[in-house]
Amino acid sequence: MRILILGGDGYLGWPTAMHFSSRGHEVHTIDNYLRRRAHTEAGTDSLTPIAGSLPARAAAWKELTGKEIGVTEGDLTDWETAERLFRDFQPEAIVHYGEMPSAPWSMIDRRHAVFTQYNNVVNTLHVLFAMHEFAPDAHLVKLGTMGEYGTPNIDIEEGWIEIEHNGRKDTLPYPKLPHSFYHLSKVHDSHNIHFACRVWGTRATDLNQGVVYGIHTEETRMDDRLLTRFDYDEAFGTALNRFTLQAVIGHPLTVYGKGGQTRGYLNIVDTLRCVELASLNPAEPGEMRVFNQFTEQFSVMDLAEIVQKAGAEYGLDVNVDHIVNPRTEKEEHYYNAKHTKLLDLGLQPHYLSEVLVEHMFEAIETYRDRVITDHILPRITWTAGLRD
Amino acid sequence: MRILILGGDGYLGWPTAMHFSSRGHEVHTIDNYLRRRAHTEAGTDSLTPIAGSLPARAAAWKELTGKEIGVTEGDLTDWETAERLFRDFQPEAIVHYGEMPSAPWSMIDRRHAVFTQYNNVVNTLHVLFAMHEFAPDAHLVKLGTMGEYGTPNIDIEEGWIEIEHNGRKDTLPYPKLPHSFYHLSKVHDSHNIHFACRVWGTRATDLNQGVVYGIHTEETRMDDRLLTRFDYDEAFGTALNRFTLQAVIGHPLTVYGKGGQTRGYLNIVDTLRCVELASLNPAEPGEMRVFNQFTEQFSVMDLAEIVQKAGAEYGLDVNVDHIVNPRTEKEEHYYNAKHTKLLDLGLQPHYLSEVLVEHMFEAIETYRDRVITDHILPRITWTAGLRD
Repeated sequence: MRILILGGDGYLGWPTAMHFSSRGHEVHTIDNYLRRRAHTEAGTDSLTPIAGSLPARAAAWKELTGKEIGVTEGDLTDWETAERLFRDFQPEAIVHYGEMPSAPWSMIDRRHAVFTQYNNVVNTLHVLFAMHEFAPDAHLVKLGTMGEYGTPNIDIEEGWIEIEHNGRKDTLPYPKLPHSFYHLSKVHDSHNIHFACRVWGTRATDLNQGVVYGIHTEETRMDDRLLTRFDYDEAFGTALNRFTLQAVIGHPLTVYGKGGQTRGYLNIVDTLRCVELASLNPAEPGEMRVFNQFTEQFSVMDLAEIVQKAGAEYGLDVNVDHIVNPRTEKEEHYYNAKHTKLLDLGLQPHYLSEVLVEHMFEAIETYRDRVITDHILPRITWTAGLRD
Repeated sequence: MRILILGGDGYLGWPTAMHFSSRGHEVHTIDNYLRRRAHTEAGTDSLTPIAGSLPARAAAWKELTGKEIGVTEGDLTDWETAERLFRDFQPEAIVHYGEMPSAPWSMIDRRHAVFTQYNNVVNTLHVLFAMHEFAPDAHLVKLGTMGEYGTPNIDIEEGWIEIEHNGRKDTLPYPKLPHSFYHLSKVHDSHNIHFACRVWGTRATDLNQGVVYGIHTEETRMDDRLLTRFDYDEAFGTALNRFTLQAVIGHPLTVYGKGGQTRGYLNIVDTLRCVELASLNPAEPGEMRVFNQFTEQFSVMDLAEIVQKAGAEYGLDVNVDHIVNPRTEKEEHYYNAKHTKLLDLGLQPHYLSEVLVEHMFEAIETYRDRVITDHILPRITWTAGLRD
């Protein structure tokens, strides 16, 4: 299959490119290095030392496996770039990770909020128009986020909900309560994609992904030049990845508020498998599928406790700090999100365990001297930060 | 009250400015003349001859009434403009008509689609940030559209719906099925505004307005220099306004497909009163109210028949053409939209009647020599039009 990976330089994009390439697919990637530039701006960096550019990563992959991963260094908010890419590569599946992916980053100030929505909404519109014009039979596999749903007081379904109201019924898009300008951008995308499916017959699968953790996949383990990035700063790091790093460097785990915030989580190796399952089993023309892509629910305190126990076994003394929550969110709430559709397609989850956390400790220790310790505590808040 | 009117040069913005000014409020307007430029680009124009600029309109108003309407000629997608405006004027209410308002225009091609979403989403984000920073107690009265809801198979509520699901209940944003890139932009806005209410305590009322008809308000009748625009082209004209003009010039009424498309409608004088009622009865801090702003439901064929009957009484021979529907939409569907909240605040509707349509015929005849007849039939379609 000809697979185009948008955001192919990212935490998930690069391992996904290798995953498909190693399974015999023809892979092309595009990235504008937005994440790398955001790190430079903030003075933060990936824990793992990643290769200097996407072509360098693809060259290492070629040297080690003999397989090609095509590379475009470019920005999909530029229409000419999108047009050329889709016309020349003629993708059969498009895996779309190519967005600004951080809730806190989008909340820094007005400029970051507006940029996030501009960047994500416009590049996804360009993808939809490029598909319609140059690859109308291709299938869009779009990374959404479980954060689009927020924390409603009813069960979260997979994208759609049957509503019975005043004696009539309809199945409608699940109502969304996104809780950052970033999450909002993904909700906007979902609506735009649904419209393209209805009007143009576009095929699309929206993967509302939970929080991803993990440092290695089958392919990143092969060679240091194939490593993917591992972020632990407040903008791009995610809960479990941050906690494991904090445990290794002896920093108290930074639980925001009470820590009752419950979300769906999954291992990075399951992300790759989910994206593969969605791509190999495409949506029908005009169909907008939504899968909730996670394997287990945890509260932040659940995670802190798992890391503490794993730390005790591993020989680390792990403390927990309840710091003032920089976000506006419920710290105790109902949460029950459905996630059966990817299991139905054959997903076999790698569940979180203390042993897995200990493997993460081990991998993190390898790069311990690279940790930038003055970026551990959060500074971005949901209520201030207007000026740039 | 200090009222800021965004889009103060438009079909509704200008009469709204005069409506508030004549009632003793301090009014400031801003407009970037987007609508005028779109007409120039398309070779179309308002039926009514409107003054050459917003300052000229305000000068005429001053001359005739002695009252001031402040004017800024500027673009709210430019942050510095938004910042200066909110800081200097310190509005208590913001009436936000300042968006690209046409579904067909947004469907012309990729460039128009992307511009519509960029323009509407970014300027509304700027309004929210400017309110948060410079006018945190002000009330946003935002013009949304009934088109955000689409045509679900259940009753349309006013913004929110109580859902009982698997034995639990929550009141959530009403699911949206917008049917153009323009309608989508308004859905994006609604989500962004709701977030600002939740996180910053912004006060907001989202007025999901139906299709507006009518050519005159109390103030536009005073003097030709106070006229508002009247569009009848496919992009900016709306169903009833277009039909009345077609009747006057002897063109068959252009019903798209079967004409069973049912929507909410209201008279322009009711628009002004609704906006006034919302402004005088502001939302609470943190509250996101949604009112469905229309007074009656009609199908397109209902309207064609009313215009036909009024034409017969008036002495016009009115024919109806069922032309190929350029839009992707249901031509027969369930439609029952609630609209009680503005009535509860005191709205006394001016219902559609044949007499009213005859008054419109009369007003249109005054400007009959200005009609550009080669822009009566629709050319923009929902399925093509990708290239610019």
